[in-house]
Amino acid sequence: MQHIRPPAKARLAYVIGPYQDPIARVKPGETFKVSTLDAFENRIDSTDVDLREVITLPYVNPCTGPIYVEGAEPGDTLSVRVDDIRITRDYAVSCLIPEFGGLCGTVFTRVLNEPLPQRVLLHPITGRGLVHDRGLKIPAIPVEPFYGTIGTAPAIEAISTLSPGFHGGNMDAADVCPGNTVHLPVNVPGAHLFIGDGHAAQGDAEVCGVAAEVPTTGTLTVSVIRKRTVRTPRIENAEFLMSVGSARPMEDAARIAFHDLVTWLADDHGFERMSAYQLCSQVARVRVANMVDILYSVVAKFPKRYLPRP
Amino acid sequence: MQHIRPPAKARLAYVIGPYQDPIARVKPGETFKVSTLDAFENRIDSTDVDLREVITLPYVNPCTGPIYVEGAEPGDTLSVRVDDIRITRDYAVSCLIPEFGGLCGTVFTRVLNEPLPQRVLLHPITGRGLVHDRGLKIPAIPVEPFYGTIGTAPAIEAISTLSPGFHGGNMDAADVCPGNTVHLPVNVPGAHLFIGDGHAAQGDAEVCGVAAEVPTTGTLTVSVIRKRTVRTPRIENAEFLMSVGSARPMEDAARIAFHDLVTWLADDHGFERMSAYQLCSQVARVRVANMVDILYSVVAKFPKRYLPRP
Amino acid sequence: MQHIRPPAKARLAYVIGPYQDPIARVKPGETFKVSTLDAFENRIDSTDVDLREVITLPYVNPCTGPIYVEGAEPGDTLSVRVDDIRITRDYAVSCLIPEFGGLCGTVFTRVLNEPLPQRVLLHPITGRGLVHDRGLKIPAIPVEPFYGTIGTAPAIEAISTLSPGFHGGNMDAADVCPGNTVHLPVNVPGAHLFIGDGHAAQGDAEVCGVAAEVPTTGTLTVSVIRKRTVRTPRIENAEFLMSVGSARPMEDAARIAFHDLVTWLADDHGFERMSAYQLCSQVARVRVANMVDILYSVVAKFPKRYLPRP
Amino acid sequence: MQHIRPPAKARLAYVIGPYQDPIARVKPGETFKVSTLDAFENRIDSTDVDLREVITLPYVNPCTGPIYVEGAEPGDTLSVRVDDIRITRDYAVSCLIPEFGGLCGTVFTRVLNEPLPQRVLLHPITGRGLVHDRGLKIPAIPVEPFYGTIGTAPAIEAISTLSPGFHGGNMDAADVCPGNTVHLPVNVPGAHLFIGDGHAAQGDAEVCGVAAEVPTTGTLTVSVIRKRTVRTPRIENAEFLMSVGSARPMEDAARIAFHDLVTWLADDHGFERMSAYQLCSQVARVRVANMVDILYSVVAKFPKRYLPRP
Repeated sequence: MQHIRPPAKARLAYVIGPYQDPIARVKPGETFKVSTLDAFENRIDSTDVDLREVITLPYVNPCTGPIYVEGAEPGDTLSVRVDDIRITRDYAVSCLIPEFGGLCGTVFTRVLNEPLPQRVLLHPITGRGLVHDRGLKIPAIPVEPFYGTIGTAPAIEAISTLSPGFHGGNMDAADVCPGNTVHLPVNVPGAHLFIGDGHAAQGDAEVCGVAAEVPTTGTLTVSVIRKRTVRTPRIENAEFLMSVGSARPMEDAARIAFHDLVTWLADDHGFERMSAYQLCSQVARVRVANMVDILYSVVAKFPKRYLPRP
Repeated sequence: MQHIRPPAKARLAYVIGPYQDPIARVKPGETFKVSTLDAFENRIDSTDVDLREVITLPYVNPCTGPIYVEGAEPGDTLSVRVDDIRITRDYAVSCLIPEFGGLCGTVFTRVLNEPLPQRVLLHPITGRGLVHDRGLKIPAIPVEPFYGTIGTAPAIEAISTLSPGFHGGNMDAADVCPGNTVHLPVNVPGAHLFIGDGHAAQGDAEVCGVAAEVPTTGTLTVSVIRKRTVRTPRIENAEFLMSVGSARPMEDAARIAFHDLVTWLADDHGFERMSAYQLCSQVARVRVANMVDILYSVVAKFPKRYLPRP
Repeated sequence: MQHIRPPAKARLAYVIGPYQDPIARVKPGETFKVSTLDAFENRIDSTDVDLREVITLPYVNPCTGPIYVEGAEPGDTLSVRVDDIRITRDYAVSCLIPEFGGLCGTVFTRVLNEPLPQRVLLHPITGRGLVHDRGLKIPAIPVEPFYGTIGTAPAIEAISTLSPGFHGGNMDAADVCPGNTVHLPVNVPGAHLFIGDGHAAQGDAEVCGVAAEVPTTGTLTVSVIRKRTVRTPRIENAEFLMSVGSARPMEDAARIAFHDLVTWLADDHGFERMSAYQLCSQVARVRVANMVDILYSVVAKFPKRYLPRP
Repeated sequence: MQHIRPPAKARLAYVIGPYQDPIARVKPGETFKVSTLDAFENRIDSTDVDLREVITLPYVNPCTGPIYVEGAEPGDTLSVRVDDIRITRDYAVSCLIPEFGGLCGTVFTRVLNEPLPQRVLLHPITGRGLVHDRGLKIPAIPVEPFYGTIGTAPAIEAISTLSPGFHGGNMDAADVCPGNTVHLPVNVPGAHLFIGDGHAAQGDAEVCGVAAEVPTTGTLTVSVIRKRTVRTPRIENAEFLMSVGSARPMEDAARIAFHDLVTWLADDHGFERMSAYQLCSQVARVRVANMVDILYSVVAKFPKRYLPRP
């Protein structure tokens, strides 16, 4: 099985775009391994690290990619099934980054208040789960790994790996996990897939701006749906159809997600649009994936059990 | 057991405020029954009804109240345990209301586009659950009743029963359900509690603007926490501490909810504030309660299993 | 000429609603005087005052009213021409209020950062204008008085005098000034007009949350337009048609303002709606009135010189 | 004088980024001419054109650039003085683009309503000004040309020419006009300046999404400020210091603009930060530049007459 590793530092991907040369090539139907660094380039190994030295924008959240998918052409959809994600370090990292997060002033929501202090934790990963803080007498947190960042190159834009968007990217959606398939737009020949930002665990909304950050080795299988495109990322598993909206303000992220979900139900599952809209109001589930990134991400979910029987 | 019924039409409560005379009095610790009309005053009994005749703003979403709680004083907290909610009609109602909802132009997000058409459904409630639409071959939806609206009077404001806020109100949070306790601020002597807007089922976000609307008879138990106040509604059950934020844009609702949750963890459960913030980023859950009302409501939830062992 | 003065403290208006007894009555066409306290009840007379003692929510920004306008009936429009505003103190007050303002965390945009310090300035008003700070060598600021708050009672809601809305209220729009006429909805018999929050000068957006606050005596003339209603406040002078939108996020305030302006141009001035929309994109002016209040206010302005010649 | 012309179609710039080869080089202090196509590539020459054929995203709003500025290095500031803008066609173009604009559903604020119709106008430019619509009896609109788009390359991102941001870009701020100087960050050697989107006239907010679009030939003078950077674009003329914020929601654009303005006043003009904040609340002016682009742009302005005398 092909194993795609992060390139040397000079070629790490900090943007998702069409301008980098592919680091590997895969075929539709191929199952392959891919390794990722954590969002801090695996550089935080102590609680004493100075985050200003580690986090030197825009060189944050390096992704592994671009991976060229043979035969994928603009107008197609790239489907990425996540078969497995293995964490390749015995601890996760989290931190409070000044002027970044859901409960502080930020580069966008600027305030004159003094910034919050930085704070770094290393979380041992044990057989029982993730240890948040040995000083706190609380149970270990179950390890439920997923990719914070997965996306395909836009046609001409190169988007920071810190941002989610119509191309996928840094959605921080825990639904990008083993067992689920992510559908992404193909805008350039070969799709140019990027993956990174492994999380061992994350709360909804990722409120402090950081999850339990880990390097990973995952197993993925790609396929190409010809001549069908998606307007925004979709995720699917046995239980749910899911559409992801990324925007600010957060209600626009929710609008994008629900609009796409209703469209999906109408286009592929026989619902009349207004009927799908009204039904979603009774059975849909929503995940706030992040409230901290350059755009916020919201996942609207339709339980497949309510799909009409053929 | 005292049974508080909706008053005659002339005295129905369409605002939550201090200006109405109480319709009933209860004592701290008292368990009582309360009946509520549906959000449309039980006036929709056919799919042919003209919504413009039924929905005559601001006379929508009538609540039962104010209920005077003996001894509650400004600066206290009113805790309302929902023991039971029984649906008192064999069908629920839902509809699409032009210029209201999550995927259309509204009175706030104004557009020049033509409004969506109105659409009314009656949903039979059977032993198997709620029938969304007999024309669709889909399973019945489980009946999981809750109150869309519960709140206490502000000191001097009278707030539309269509709006949520720091006083509770129209949060449309499915967590206001049997088994859960809602903590609300007391701003006037007697607290002046209002209840209404029963829902037989609702998706997260209530995307079309309406859930499965029903009249109800519920059983509640009230208690008063002296000289402690809540800045925004809190909900509690065996599993979660929950704080509700209501605001626009939606990220501010999430900020209010998480800020209160972190404060709660710090004030009552021994966490250092920055530690609670960082832990929430790994274990919190979020419900988008509504994306359609005058303010959006978001519930931030902390799993009690992660509270420190004493 | 009738002179309406602020009532005694017990009857000061801190909400705009239908529940207070009128303090005075005027007739359509009548010109009268009205005096107002400043937003802090004239209680700040030193830079050493502790704002926590002065600002005891919700008892802030007292208005003079309700003023009953004879014959005004629901469905009418109340037009208030501002003839004159005289400042009745030789200094204005401004301050930084912790957790309030445009560049800090607030009760809605909550942050865990430490609040900004309080800061109080008294600004002498001289023949040359307003002296911002004797310690700064800068020119005096021209005195251009206006009312921060003017509104009519909603039908059943009682809205904090700190909030703007469809009823007018705390718009903080410098266009509510001598020479201009404000059109407000009539929702209750007599309209119930409230006025307050005099400003000697204010920058667009009122960024720190407070302008140069002064008590005033103004001269107003009211008239009633029968059986015509306004959906949001309108302001008119020789130069502009102006519509005011108040909402969060700020783009919704702008949407309300422009939607109303386009509607006004179409309904009363012979434009086709899409044509008015496209023309506004070339000639409209916008004032951000406030970015600090419970809702933000935006004024969209159409220069009358572009009205079609009859 | 050097005259930089738009390149052939294959090399037109639809993103602002570091990946294109410079089309010209200028020296600090050099005055040069630059020509720009209109936002629609000069392709609209009739009111009958089908916008779906003209507007093929992402190939819209072509800029002239990148222009390499000798000696400009990351960490410097590029100052661009606009000496003159000449319109090089005898008509301007405007249109309504379905799902784009300030009063309709868009790709972000998605709605299920039917889109607005397209509508195209050609506006003759005469000695008297711009003729909006010969069918309307209204005066000509004064021609006040400016650049809707001006920006420098980010370090690694390539941003759509439709988006404004910290790099400048599609701000649609009428303050980028003859007589004014724009300060932009330098993120790559040579700065890589892009210019386009000439407007013959535009209302604040550009509410329908399009101004009076024209091709231009302008005269610019560039200079480099060594080892000083700007966090967001600044504009300066004899009358005002101006900071531009671009973000969603609009209040965040205003926060960025005012935060930068207060910082500028504190860093360069001797104000204490809180004092600058409080003074801005009395004398600042605000322009809503656009409420329609990928990010909204707001300009906060400080009148130089209130700068302290030395």
